[in-house]
Amino acid sequence: MSVRYAEDFVVGTEYRFGRWPMTEDDIVAFAKTFDPQPMHTDPEAASAGQWGGVIASGLHTMAVYQALVVEAVWADVVGKAGRNVNARLRRPVRPGMVLTGKAMITEVTLRPEKGDGILAWRAELVDEASGEVVLIVDADAVLYLRPAA
Amino acid sequence: MSVRYAEDFVVGTEYRFGRWPMTEDDIVAFAKTFDPQPMHTDPEAASAGQWGGVIASGLHTMAVYQALVVEAVWADVVGKAGRNVNARLRRPVRPGMVLTGKAMITEVTLRPEKGDGILAWRAELVDEASGEVVLIVDADAVLYLRPAA
Repeated sequence: MSVRYAEDFVVGTEYRFGRWPMTEDDIVAFAKTFDPQPMHTDPEAASAGQWGGVIASGLHTMAVYQALVVEAVWADVVGKAGRNVNARLRRPVRPGMVLTGKAMITEVTLRPEKGDGILAWRAELVDEASGEVVLIVDADAVLYLRPAA
Repeated sequence: MSVRYAEDFVVGTEYRFGRWPMTEDDIVAFAKTFDPQPMHTDPEAASAGQWGGVIASGLHTMAVYQALVVEAVWADVVGKAGRNVNARLRRPVRPGMVLTGKAMITEVTLRPEKGDGILAWRAELVDEASGEVVLIVDADAVLYLRPAA
């Protein structure tokens, strides 16, 4: 398996995400553990509420972002340690939506004295059907530099 | 049930969180769905890695933050819509840790013309045993104002 290190990333490279269908069952199950509020966990109560039905916990949408960015960007990177995750929730995510999107590398800072590099990126999750942005993430992580041969 | 609205929050109020034990099973299960990297999902491979065992996905730690803040702050608030979640992952979270912490209201901006208010807060999650901070979150949300009687 090929392995990528900090210096293998290039500012401006864009990574396309796969697809993640959001089901009512998944939305309710995630929220029962991590965000137990009726707008996320109770379809009957939520149908009379401001959104007309359950919407996903923002943390659920952020976790889906993570699943998609791991698949698209991190699969062949070892030793990553996440540092900052700045998320802007832009629109409610509803059952039946399919989330997809992209990430772009915005900054690569190599630190040879530490043997690592800092990678920053911006990602967007969109509702596939409408193309509307539901989440914007600016994040960074520390990656290893390639070990000396 | 009493219900709280935007104008019921006061800058400087501190909310203490409950306790959330982090188990290896939960760490692996969360990561298999949302962050499938060996440092989170494979205890054997991770034991030879940089952390000496699995560590929680940063998104898992953030989801635990959400569970604790919902319990401590949002239980009697209706109509909240999260906007921004800015998370700084400070230390690895390991199986056996118990996470707890607190949140403090940092800003309350009422918008009578829109019938809502924006609430901002800072939260910290700490490892209960050591007191070390593992996560800092700055976040905000839109809340309803109290309806006219």
